[in-house]
Amino acid sequence: MKNILPRSVERLSEALSSLPGIGPKTANRLTFYLLGRNEEELNQFGQSFLDLKKNLVVCSKCFLISESDPCVICQDKSREQDKLAVVEEPLDVLAMEKARFNGLYHVLGGQISPINNVSPDDLKIKELLTRLESGDFKEAILATDPSLEGEATALYIDEQVNRAQKDGRLKGVSITRIARGLPVGGDLEYADELTLTRSLEGRRSYPSKS
Amino acid sequence: MKNILPRSVERLSEALSSLPGIGPKTANRLTFYLLGRNEEELNQFGQSFLDLKKNLVVCSKCFLISESDPCVICQDKSREQDKLAVVEEPLDVLAMEKARFNGLYHVLGGQISPINNVSPDDLKIKELLTRLESGDFKEAILATDPSLEGEATALYIDEQVNRAQKDGRLKGVSITRIARGLPVGGDLEYADELTLTRSLEGRRSYPSKS
Repeated sequence: MKNILPRSVERLSEALSSLPGIGPKTANRLTFYLLGRNEEELNQFGQSFLDLKKNLVVCSKCFLISESDPCVICQDKSREQDKLAVVEEPLDVLAMEKARFNGLYHVLGGQISPINNVSPDDLKIKELLTRLESGDFKEAILATDPSLEGEATALYIDEQVNRAQKDGRLKGVSITRIARGLPVGGDLEYADELTLTRSLEGRRSYPSKS
Repeated sequence: MKNILPRSVERLSEALSSLPGIGPKTANRLTFYLLGRNEEELNQFGQSFLDLKKNLVVCSKCFLISESDPCVICQDKSREQDKLAVVEEPLDVLAMEKARFNGLYHVLGGQISPINNVSPDDLKIKELLTRLESGDFKEAILATDPSLEGEATALYIDEQVNRAQKDGRLKGVSITRIARGLPVGGDLEYADELTLTRSLEGRRSYPSKS
């Protein structure tokens, strides 16, 4: 039954089904969809896989993947130079950009997670402290995920900053955390307990002055 | 905001999001997953796109895509040579193989669908009649989808066969249709009306003798 489809079809289908969230049936469907594309489109597709890692570097300042070092964001002098958003992954930078954040970034490279064997030393936390100690930043916004691991990571960073402040190594940086609350367009009735609790804790005077 | 990610990352992400069922967010996630793979794996991935259509032919007998003409199924003398399953697409052949069908196939290349501008002439129906007229087959199993278009396609083929039988061009071929009924593991309570009606129409004496 295996050898009925041409090997090239089998091979692409297998490759696609190795991607997260794509099962064998979806992979088959995608492969047959691709069979309907012309040669040129398939070549472009293939080439974009082959080229993916070409000319790719990691920014030595913020650790975002980039084509230049420093990256376009770190080079952009029109951004607010004294605000630093601390995020887990490159995709979080994209999300922050969509939310019109206009400061600089620090990409940790993950979250502290003993289950997945990720300790603080595996993340760019030491590098973060060095950046904060430089005195360039007035505010560090901890924008890690509002999950168990994300909170633990934020907490760990906060402790490290506090320690550095007591030592006198680090001065004048205020640490903030992105707000947790009801998502816009959400429904109070269906909010989970913890989110609503956090939302109450984070309440502000109304109408908001900010 | 667009130019923050390296061009090669953007390009693969755009290519992936052009696939059916993959939106921009999933495409981004897949791309970053692929960034975590090594160069060799990416090359294999890219190569399988480039090679997809190489050495690919369509079997001149059954119209299945294949590496040889006739295809492995048409060449296989151990299969029941007098049973022909008429299906819409190559993936339907895979499904039939999983269900252990052991005859030969005829791939129509789609279903009659005026909305999508697919007329009987766009499908391999003429070729099907020629095969049936050869006298090689005792049974033609219409295994098109149990959908509106699939039923229309089955009906059209049946009419053509009847006409050919009246003309005397075609002899001794019985036309059957795959059964429509409740799916195995399904729940009668939740069955739709039409499926249950078809299931009742198709009832058999019990215990089944077949």
